[in-house]
Amino acid sequence: MSRGPFVTPKLALVMVGLPARGKTYTAQKLSRYLAWLGHRTRIFNLGEYRRAKLGPSAPNEFFNPDNPEGRRVRLELAMAAIDDVCAWFGKEGDVAILDATNSSRERRQFVQARFDSEGIQVLFVEVLCDDSEMIEANIRQTKLASPDYAGIDADEAVRDFRARIAHYERVYEAIGEDEASYIKLVDVGRQVVVNRVDSHLGGRLVSFLMKLHINPRPILLTRHGESEFNIRALIGGDPPLSALGRGYGRALGDYLREEFDGEDSPEIWTSALERTGETASFFSDDTVVLRQLDEIDAGICDGLSYEEIAARMPLEFGARARDKLRYRYPRGESYVDVINRLEPVIVELERQRRPVVVVAHQAVIRALYAYFRELPREACPHQSIPLHTVIKLTPGPYGCAEERIDLIEQARNRAN
Amino acid sequence: MSRGPFVTPKLALVMVGLPARGKTYTAQKLSRYLAWLGHRTRIFNLGEYRRAKLGPSAPNEFFNPDNPEGRRVRLELAMAAIDDVCAWFGKEGDVAILDATNSSRERRQFVQARFDSEGIQVLFVEVLCDDSEMIEANIRQTKLASPDYAGIDADEAVRDFRARIAHYERVYEAIGEDEASYIKLVDVGRQVVVNRVDSHLGGRLVSFLMKLHINPRPILLTRHGESEFNIRALIGGDPPLSALGRGYGRALGDYLREEFDGEDSPEIWTSALERTGETASFFSDDTVVLRQLDEIDAGICDGLSYEEIAARMPLEFGARARDKLRYRYPRGESYVDVINRLEPVIVELERQRRPVVVVAHQAVIRALYAYFRELPREACPHQSIPLHTVIKLTPGPYGCAEERIDLIEQARNRAN
Repeated sequence: MSRGPFVTPKLALVMVGLPARGKTYTAQKLSRYLAWLGHRTRIFNLGEYRRAKLGPSAPNEFFNPDNPEGRRVRLELAMAAIDDVCAWFGKEGDVAILDATNSSRERRQFVQARFDSEGIQVLFVEVLCDDSEMIEANIRQTKLASPDYAGIDADEAVRDFRARIAHYERVYEAIGEDEASYIKLVDVGRQVVVNRVDSHLGGRLVSFLMKLHINPRPILLTRHGESEFNIRALIGGDPPLSALGRGYGRALGDYLREEFDGEDSPEIWTSALERTGETASFFSDDTVVLRQLDEIDAGICDGLSYEEIAARMPLEFGARARDKLRYRYPRGESYVDVINRLEPVIVELERQRRPVVVVAHQAVIRALYAYFRELPREACPHQSIPLHTVIKLTPGPYGCAEERIDLIEQARNRAN
Repeated sequence: MSRGPFVTPKLALVMVGLPARGKTYTAQKLSRYLAWLGHRTRIFNLGEYRRAKLGPSAPNEFFNPDNPEGRRVRLELAMAAIDDVCAWFGKEGDVAILDATNSSRERRQFVQARFDSEGIQVLFVEVLCDDSEMIEANIRQTKLASPDYAGIDADEAVRDFRARIAHYERVYEAIGEDEASYIKLVDVGRQVVVNRVDSHLGGRLVSFLMKLHINPRPILLTRHGESEFNIRALIGGDPPLSALGRGYGRALGDYLREEFDGEDSPEIWTSALERTGETASFFSDDTVVLRQLDEIDAGICDGLSYEEIAARMPLEFGARARDKLRYRYPRGESYVDVINRLEPVIVELERQRRPVVVVAHQAVIRALYAYFRELPREACPHQSIPLHTVIKLTPGPYGCAEERIDLIEQARNRAN
């Protein structure tokens, strides 16, 4: 594919917003999503440029718009970051995320003009929030852990950070609708304003950003229980569970009933294949069946063992070993194909406020896991996702906590 | 699937906007999209209620907010329409679109309260447009053809319609962000404001509405040329073209070069299968390859003829004959599955401003064709989409013009 609607031109996502509004959080979410989809994405954080030049801490006076030296240095730092973005696009980059306040119209015009001259599309992403509780929580949770305030008393740090915000507030100009292409996020997804966004990727980013929220809830990933094909080491097919696999279904049900007793009952999502529905059935029949969760389609290799593939189709076997991410089974799918068809599932998982249990298959769980754990794409097909194990992920503001619950013993005890 | 994120609750889409802003156009686009995706959707147009009660024409005085009788009758009509919406939800409806001005906050509160009391989700869709040329064009192109002005002199009708708009403008209140869940469309997709929209379907509607434009451009649909499997009446597979099929590739190339000579060169989209790429290759190698355009997956029936399926799997054959839309080949797909995977392609086709030529397969072309021609879903699998024929669709403000270009003779002449 040489070009076309689904191909992304060089795109600079330029964050806009006062400090502690969630710019960095949003930038990191965007970066993870875009990288998972295969766009070479990098965040350029202006705070890091400042720290590299001036050392770890800068007093709030540095951010005072009446301080001419501070203004000059801040402009120089922005120019250095933009230079780096342009150089990176020249080498390999698809999407750059410029994480800075960009709080004046003048600064944004400067950024826009520079990227325009390099033939780079610009999309501003403004993060607005007037909820003082949310801002306070953000300051306490994230800014105090910032290198800017290492070794400084917490209350003193909060005071200084509030003064820094006040400097910005004096000159802050929200993006006007005549200004540019932008997505404006108001109060974490309550309102989204989309202005002059007319690209395929822009539309996807809007859908994605609309769904983000910061309410904590776990996402549980598991493969189906052992199937009749697992026993015979065959791939694909639509086999039923083995006796041990049914034991895992029961053990999983026991675990989920204990984990979610009462009100906060989880959604159960399964693939359309028999072995995932059967695994979930020991907990609930009230499941959501999604074909997007079906195992990677092995095409002409479906129903064979890896040994048979190696013996009968050594060239295919070798090609897959060389590039497991991009290798596409003849008449079937690659991991990249699986990732692409899972995109709506990821967006839905971001949106859900209830716990979700996903009962699916090895390649599918690998792809979902790679998203939440921010793994490089190349690592995705090589993750260990053992049978009879629940992977509990708890997304937090920066990254995703992981716990693995090994139910192998319980599955054996509950087998019949 | 009993519930879950991808399932739609009863949803009322309530249009808001001054006359001649494109509400009915937007409502029809939404209706077509939703119906194609399988939601039982109906538009309730308040103008039709008025005409049913008061006869075809109503003088602009009827719409004067200072006219108490007009106000009373208009409220009664709105109540009757909402009653019908509720009755329809009770019977079979998934999504109702209430096509009316709903121009005051008071009226919207009334509508919201009524639907709330019935447990129906409400999403307002406000259409704003300040472009006087666009409004004038809309009045001339659509309002003069309305039954309201049948047999009335055009200039007189425009004068009256402008007076009607003026009545509404005096009292129009745009939706405020404290009011409700809404999507606000400003100047045909230039700006979209999304407020408190947190459902899966809401997100899809936003993506879809963002892409709409009214610039005319053709969309050309064609199957690949005859393949080696077509000759042997086998389904599926990944065969190359026959000599006649290559003749069609050349004939299609000739036709496209003549149709689009010079500047307005079309995008060519093909499936990932050999026969579509080969067909397109006689015109251009610069194609967009989309796996979503691959032929319906016939699962275990792939590579068989219909006669073989009937002989070997009579139960499957009978089940397919009974419900070709929903029948899913074992380990394969149904037409409904094909429609769902084509959804991003439809959204991209709506967005494209250049002509697009889609070279794909029978079931896929049927599904795309059903969308553009607003066919009932049940009719989709039964459309005649002959080989060696181009279907040229030209979307207009109300419906889609169709032309079929038969290249059967040319394909024969160019075969070798």
